[in-house]
Amino acid sequence: MPLLVTGSIGIDTVETPAGKRADVVGGSAIYFSYAASFFTPVRLVGVMGEDAPSAFVDIFQGRPVDTTGLERRKGSKTFRWHGSYVENLNEAVTVEVDLNVLAERAPKIPEAFLDSRYIFLANTHPSLQQEMLGNLKHRKLVVADTMNLWITTQREELLKLLKQIDGLVLNDGEARLLTDQKNLVAAARDVLKLGPKFVVIKKGEHGCLMASDRDTFTLPAFPADKVVDPTGAGDTFAGGMMGYLATQGSFTASTIKRALAFGTVVASFTISDFSLAGLQNTSRDQIDTRWDQFKQAMSF
Amino acid sequence: MPLLVTGSIGIDTVETPAGKRADVVGGSAIYFSYAASFFTPVRLVGVMGEDAPSAFVDIFQGRPVDTTGLERRKGSKTFRWHGSYVENLNEAVTVEVDLNVLAERAPKIPEAFLDSRYIFLANTHPSLQQEMLGNLKHRKLVVADTMNLWITTQREELLKLLKQIDGLVLNDGEARLLTDQKNLVAAARDVLKLGPKFVVIKKGEHGCLMASDRDTFTLPAFPADKVVDPTGAGDTFAGGMMGYLATQGSFTASTIKRALAFGTVVASFTISDFSLAGLQNTSRDQIDTRWDQFKQAMSF
Repeated sequence: MPLLVTGSIGIDTVETPAGKRADVVGGSAIYFSYAASFFTPVRLVGVMGEDAPSAFVDIFQGRPVDTTGLERRKGSKTFRWHGSYVENLNEAVTVEVDLNVLAERAPKIPEAFLDSRYIFLANTHPSLQQEMLGNLKHRKLVVADTMNLWITTQREELLKLLKQIDGLVLNDGEARLLTDQKNLVAAARDVLKLGPKFVVIKKGEHGCLMASDRDTFTLPAFPADKVVDPTGAGDTFAGGMMGYLATQGSFTASTIKRALAFGTVVASFTISDFSLAGLQNTSRDQIDTRWDQFKQAMSF
Repeated sequence: MPLLVTGSIGIDTVETPAGKRADVVGGSAIYFSYAASFFTPVRLVGVMGEDAPSAFVDIFQGRPVDTTGLERRKGSKTFRWHGSYVENLNEAVTVEVDLNVLAERAPKIPEAFLDSRYIFLANTHPSLQQEMLGNLKHRKLVVADTMNLWITTQREELLKLLKQIDGLVLNDGEARLLTDQKNLVAAARDVLKLGPKFVVIKKGEHGCLMASDRDTFTLPAFPADKVVDPTGAGDTFAGGMMGYLATQGSFTASTIKRALAFGTVVASFTISDFSLAGLQNTSRDQIDTRWDQFKQAMSF
């Protein structure tokens, strides 16, 4: 089943203990799409400026990513992010951020995408997320991401969104901020009271926590002895998870767990190199092999 | 198989967001022994001062813990620790510590304990750990814990100890300090080069990482929505792990993984109440039930 994603398209500059890369391909929707495309066809909706290099389209060459919804807007500039992981590989410090085209009107969802049933609303203003969602009448599974900024400044809009989605993906700090609970299990349960049927809390190198009405469990991250660039780990985790779910008919705890394991494994390839390079050097076979290893490691 | 443990006997004062308890039963060997006794007979070797309340012996009433090696030393004072988890439930701040009797000569291992094959050297001076070990000629499995203080000030003695043990248990900060590696997988591999056949890095609420020549894997903690007092979590994790291993004939990756899962589950009961109360209100049946839940949660 095709999976629709909307989110940011960005030009990144990243510093990590392994080095620095300037003006590389980034953005939540780009990372997400690449990861999900290992599993299912992806429909990408996003907007970039006229300064965006052709790499944003080229990167999906030969992959099942439909870039019809990728708008190159004249007179606008692409979203830019400059982050540093030099002090802490598990959390980026934003050195500079320029919203640019992200502060303008939302991109348009192509007609041919309006029948999408699997939808991922990557992180953006919750009003835009609701607007996007309003146009998608055939939805079967909607999962959203969000961030500190919206939790703090757009709480009412975010709470409205939460009543319309099936799943919420967010990181540990965001979960604590949203619920005012220090304990993550308690935070997850409080998120469920706000609407979503399930919530996935991303804990970076410490894995993830999933909670639904019936289940609460944690999975560790895949043990990595070399982390080059953590940028996009969370987005590709979500991409692997949603990509797998879009191939499944039901969303039992077991299906979600298998999906989270795919997300975990895909993210472990992402962090092995800068920008998208880690994923570009990965095959579905390698993902499946590592998934089997991960499953085996968790089994006793 | 009986399991011999030597470590600290302490009178604790603990502050957590849930409240404060003064002068309660504590110490690594006490926590460890109680946890291990759910699985196997325990031989406790430790020393307390004449000020120690009878609670240190009474607490093991009706449990398979042989307290013959628990010395009450006249003219000495019991080790005391005052810690606070008010700011961070995952890491204690030491408010005050008085080594007292721990700074004196080591306790004597009773004759009847000298045939012990399973040995846990809880955290103390690495010279004392080696001295203890020298008296135990029938050892089959020796695992030790250590701490920042010895890594920094007694590195040579600690390195000598590491060549004589099968397994090392330590927390993430200690592993980084010992190896000068930020990445925990790399740190674990470096520990193996120092002697131990396996190493278990405890990550508190984030679970544990195990590495041996052949395997590297992580297990999450049991998701807890209420943490009252984390004191003793690491010691009871080790107690559950070693208690289970002492009932097994071999130490394959699979056996160690099952042992780590028992340690994880026992620790989840420890943190549910102050001091030993969480464990005192727990039965082996409850441990087995939660272990099954944990195993199930990890399986996909």
